[in-house]
Amino acid sequence: MNHQREIFSCSQPFILESGKTLESFDIVYDTYGKLNANKDNVVLVFHAFSGSNHAAGKLESDDSIGWWDKFIGPNKAINTNESFVICANNIGSCFGSTGPKSVFNNTNKTYGKNFPEVSVTDWNNSIYKLLDSLNIKKVNTAIGASLGGMQVMDLISNKNKSTKKGIIIGASPKPRQFNILLNHVQRSILNLSDKPDALQVARMLSHISYISSNFIEEKFRYNLQKPESRISEDIKYESENYLSYHGKKFEKKFDRNSFRLMTKAMDSYFLDESKIKNIESKVLLISFDDDLLFPSKDMLEFHNLLKMRGIDSYHEKLKGTRGHDSFLYLTEDYQKKLVKFLKK
Amino acid sequence: MNHQREIFSCSQPFILESGKTLESFDIVYDTYGKLNANKDNVVLVFHAFSGSNHAAGKLESDDSIGWWDKFIGPNKAINTNESFVICANNIGSCFGSTGPKSVFNNTNKTYGKNFPEVSVTDWNNSIYKLLDSLNIKKVNTAIGASLGGMQVMDLISNKNKSTKKGIIIGASPKPRQFNILLNHVQRSILNLSDKPDALQVARMLSHISYISSNFIEEKFRYNLQKPESRISEDIKYESENYLSYHGKKFEKKFDRNSFRLMTKAMDSYFLDESKIKNIESKVLLISFDDDLLFPSKDMLEFHNLLKMRGIDSYHEKLKGTRGHDSFLYLTEDYQKKLVKFLKK
Repeated sequence: MNHQREIFSCSQPFILESGKTLESFDIVYDTYGKLNANKDNVVLVFHAFSGSNHAAGKLESDDSIGWWDKFIGPNKAINTNESFVICANNIGSCFGSTGPKSVFNNTNKTYGKNFPEVSVTDWNNSIYKLLDSLNIKKVNTAIGASLGGMQVMDLISNKNKSTKKGIIIGASPKPRQFNILLNHVQRSILNLSDKPDALQVARMLSHISYISSNFIEEKFRYNLQKPESRISEDIKYESENYLSYHGKKFEKKFDRNSFRLMTKAMDSYFLDESKIKNIESKVLLISFDDDLLFPSKDMLEFHNLLKMRGIDSYHEKLKGTRGHDSFLYLTEDYQKKLVKFLKK
Repeated sequence: MNHQREIFSCSQPFILESGKTLESFDIVYDTYGKLNANKDNVVLVFHAFSGSNHAAGKLESDDSIGWWDKFIGPNKAINTNESFVICANNIGSCFGSTGPKSVFNNTNKTYGKNFPEVSVTDWNNSIYKLLDSLNIKKVNTAIGASLGGMQVMDLISNKNKSTKKGIIIGASPKPRQFNILLNHVQRSILNLSDKPDALQVARMLSHISYISSNFIEEKFRYNLQKPESRISEDIKYESENYLSYHGKKFEKKFDRNSFRLMTKAMDSYFLDESKIKNIESKVLLISFDDDLLFPSKDMLEFHNLLKMRGIDSYHEKLKGTRGHDSFLYLTEDYQKKLVKFLKK
């Protein structure tokens, strides 16, 4: 598979929804497959909260395998023999695009806490600039889960842009109070301490909200943690050790200011009625029955609203294997529903 | 209603399950109604995690109203015209019984972090000492929710003691990994900082786990917080302000070492099979359909296990109004189920 990693540099001022301006920005993005002559085979893949541009494959410069490797590739659900897949790291994140860890306007200092607030729409506006630079006028399919799903909603409801299909997985067109409160606690944890541990603990909480309670129940039962492999002293159960381990791993790769920014952007996303009427894309909504953050019943309600507005919408409720995180794990059923819609 | 607050002081060494010893301890307890001549009208009420001995009514010495005031009183579900109700604050807690805030063995120092680990069984053993001091041999009914429900399980499965009826509300006979992980994050939050704020944030998390997502969705919709009544700067929604407000209120009344101790005790409670066969009480299990911590399906499974063991068990699944916290809010149905069982 043809897999490239590129950086798009926009040297013009970029005005954000908040009214603030980024003097310039970079977006790091991966591409898979080839852009056809008509430039109409583009699939935009949006990452979730802690994801990156590295959606599939493995580059020499990067030891890891992309987070959706089972989904994207030759003859996979998102077929790179036919499609040109673009996955960009959002600005404000911390995997190469301009964000709090970037150096602020030729000073030697990073933005840190001073990086301006970004929104879902800001992310998409920056991606339109990237598409313009590639001379791409029309997106064939936009697909994303969670925060990425909000980007799909924003994209397909932008009346100035044309997107043929949109796939929204485990996301909501309006803020859910339960999620807002979890994010509020996570940011409050970061406020408690400047030590890296705070980011570890904040992530431990989000991790709980991503996995399903059935999954952890089955995985861990009542297993006690062996004292020699405990990663902190007051741990009793294996499940606690697992959570702390994943928190620590995340702490090393992520940035606390990006964490703040991106949870704030999620909390604020609201697809209002006036924008819904702009949607001309075919829409597929996928929900998982064990998703604590974006319950199937809410996605079904959204589907019904789209249908009422005359939009060509489909809703598939799948059996989740990992709660909200189910979007990362390909099952036969999941694959089938994606392929069926993509062939429509 | 005859309402008294007393302190029971046990001056003899008290050996805990951990093997450690408390040289002496105090238990503060409230009583409602009158002990009859046969001393067989005792209803033991156990409080949940952050509850206290103050279960009902209002004393001159205490401005607040008991947490189960709608349940306990003359002609209420727990009828103080007939029953003598005792509610004791657990040792290790912070409302008057010996705990981390108490002075350690005539030194001027409090126990603080050095208060020994306590278990559900330790709590009940200390309460047996209180009952002995009152010359009460037999408990008519034991009732409790959440952590208090675990105390009921432990009590009715103690073969040396006799309890006629047990009512267990929103609790589990074995550790649930989801709850363990939430508690682990809460303790990890306390580890981040010695400032009182840490207890506030830990409680904010437990608060989310207690309420139902439907309840907060309906209560708050998308309401933004007015800037002038914001209790912290980065708050956008009214729901976030509500959560922070309740966290702060809790922080002022509770103790962080009690928080640790009591979550640890909950995480460790396990009613093993060998103890189930000791149960001779009639048992009522009450679950709420929107309880995130102790789902109805788990309580139904427990009920089926009790039935298989020949125990006279009943399970009532009620429509919850407030998630796990539903046990605090009396509805008509809730009242009816309690009264029906208490009349059996």
